[in-house]
Amino acid sequence: PASFDSTEHPHRRFNALSGEWVLVSPHRSKRPWQGQQEETEQDQRPAYDPTCYLCPGNVRVGGEVNPKYTDTFVFNNDFGALTADVPTGGINEGGLLRAEAESGVCRVICFSPRHDLTLPQMETFAIRKVVDLWVEEFTTLGARPDINYVQIFENKGPMMGCSNPHPHGQIWAQRTVPGEPAKETVQQLAYFQEHGRTLLSDYLKIELEKKERVVIENEHFVVLVPFWAVWPFETIVIARRPVQDVTQLTSDERDALADILRRLTIRYDNLFSISFPYSAGLHQRPTDGQEHPEWHLHMHFYPPLLRSATVRKFMVGYEMLGDPQRDITPEFSAGRLREQSEVHYKAAQ
Amino acid sequence: PASFDSTEHPHRRFNALSGEWVLVSPHRSKRPWQGQQEETEQDQRPAYDPTCYLCPGNVRVGGEVNPKYTDTFVFNNDFGALTADVPTGGINEGGLLRAEAESGVCRVICFSPRHDLTLPQMETFAIRKVVDLWVEEFTTLGARPDINYVQIFENKGPMMGCSNPHPHGQIWAQRTVPGEPAKETVQQLAYFQEHGRTLLSDYLKIELEKKERVVIENEHFVVLVPFWAVWPFETIVIARRPVQDVTQLTSDERDALADILRRLTIRYDNLFSISFPYSAGLHQRPTDGQEHPEWHLHMHFYPPLLRSATVRKFMVGYEMLGDPQRDITPEFSAGRLREQSEVHYKAAQ
Ligand SMILES: O=P(O)(O)O[C@H]1O[C@H](CO)[C@@H](O)[C@H](O)[C@H]1O
Ligand SMILES: O=P(O)(O)O[C@H]1O[C@H](CO)[C@@H](O)[C@H](O)[C@H]1O
Repeated sequence: PASFDSTEHPHRRFNALSGEWVLVSPHRSKRPWQGQQEETEQDQRPAYDPTCYLCPGNVRVGGEVNPKYTDTFVFNNDFGALTADVPTGGINEGGLLRAEAESGVCRVICFSPRHDLTLPQMETFAIRKVVDLWVEEFTTLGARPDINYVQIFENKGPMMGCSNPHPHGQIWAQRTVPGEPAKETVQQLAYFQEHGRTLLSDYLKIELEKKERVVIENEHFVVLVPFWAVWPFETIVIARRPVQDVTQLTSDERDALADILRRLTIRYDNLFSISFPYSAGLHQRPTDGQEHPEWHLHMHFYPPLLRSATVRKFMVGYEMLGDPQRDITPEFSAGRLREQSEVHYKAAQ
Repeated sequence: PASFDSTEHPHRRFNALSGEWVLVSPHRSKRPWQGQQEETEQDQRPAYDPTCYLCPGNVRVGGEVNPKYTDTFVFNNDFGALTADVPTGGINEGGLLRAEAESGVCRVICFSPRHDLTLPQMETFAIRKVVDLWVEEFTTLGARPDINYVQIFENKGPMMGCSNPHPHGQIWAQRTVPGEPAKETVQQLAYFQEHGRTLLSDYLKIELEKKERVVIENEHFVVLVPFWAVWPFETIVIARRPVQDVTQLTSDERDALADILRRLTIRYDNLFSISFPYSAGLHQRPTDGQEHPEWHLHMHFYPPLLRSATVRKFMVGYEMLGDPQRDITPEFSAGRLREQSEVHYKAAQ
């Protein structure tokens, strides 16, 4: 037979950042789809919605009234999965039933007072205000002795469990370091100890030479489809400078982050001409008082769509019981994203 | 403050089988839901559908004609994610870009010739034929030197990415051991080496004493909501005897497995009076030629629904970037499943 060709033959790829594998089946992308079709909503929203609990001046479920904010606005989630004041304690029966009390805080961040916008429809200076708020929140929460990890993220679109279209993200900050950043700590630390450089610096260097998975760049950030991407159009935003967290970003770097987020999310929307659903989030050093020179700030984008606005990738069955699996290759996806315009399809109409 | 109470306070639970954690937020179950509602389809199907590529006598996408089978039927997936005859090879650049060719086979198993049935609507003797086929397939595939792991599973319902309602499951068998069973091997081996008994034997013993998470039992199997369940109504089916794989089951045990699967899936359908979606699959020893005395046969059920037929749990945002999270406790879910009748709601109408 011919020699191994990663554009044709099934293979596994190693996620150097998490230490896990993904099964890639490039030959499978021609499989017909007869399953569930997602709805595409005509996304026509008013600039202000009197029934939205995130719009300025409105009353929230807990009874509080939102200020008439003009850029960003942050508050404690009225139904947070994490709460402060949890009595310490736990369960341990023979190592088989083990539980530990967990405390923390869940915050909601409104990106804009405008109910009808999303990140790709906002101006760069407005996204910069979101970045500034992330920095403030990371600083304050990270300084608390009872908070050792701060997870900043956004769920966008009903397909990603987002229950309110008002542009917003969340922060869950807690006592322990969750599994995903814990795995990334292990991998990054091992690499740093061996090479004296961060794993993502060296990885970025290779990707910038090869170019095939790079989507966009600016002076301070690079967006690429990682070699080990699980989701069809998954990307990672990597800081060129090996900083551990957002507080270390210069003002120029914060602007550059806002710029790259705007350009990336416009490309996503343009890919299938819809408001592109995803979960996205920053991964940063644990706020456990250690230095963490091994940590390299980055942001993951995990979008579920596969072939069109209505056909998504399901991570089910084999994926839940075995390993994640993908059909189209990361290189193909990067090409598709590179092709997109940076003028939002709605603005172009 | 009061002392720690796992029915009220946020906490983390350790999955002794995988070595990972889940965040439990029991106080959060009262949160209002304004997000995406799933469709419930009126599930009225004919016993035979001339357009179904799994019905007896019909032509498949690849051109082959299905036999006029009368109980189960198995064939190679026309669009398998794994294929045989993959040239060996791979990529390794500084440990950062790593890929390996992967080979294997994807099989499709029709559970019944009847297009209109699902497992909970089948008779126990018919489910026993499915169990027998699993045994045959595990034996044949597992004996191949190029196959070191055999994953048997079912995706049920469009919500779980299932593209054809004809009752069927799949088998993906491959050269390497995927991540999930690999983690379970690590945990089970460590336990076995320390205690000389399988992890699941000791775990089952504790659960049978406590009863609060047990759903149903028969002579040879127990179904319970694991202490570390991630999905709202997740269950695990555990063999009472610590066997490593299905080939070691006696004829009585195979009958008992069919019985417990029928009773469990009826309870699932009755919970919200719909054809209950899930991904389910057997976890068994790798077929790598080793003995694996640490392995203990079990089956996972991962159903996505949370509160009703239309409100599901989304594993997004925090879950993708941090840890899986659940609202209702496993003990609550076990109680709800215990309450259900074992007469299928459609038969009862
Ligand atoms: O093979 P199917 O049923 O077409 O596809 C389904 O199951 C596979 C295995 O769990 C998944 O990879 C697919 O995303 C899902 O749609
Ligand atoms: O907090 P929300 O937006 O109501 O809820 C959403 O995000 C959470 C964090 O990712 C998830 O746990 C929920 O399943 C999802 O519906």
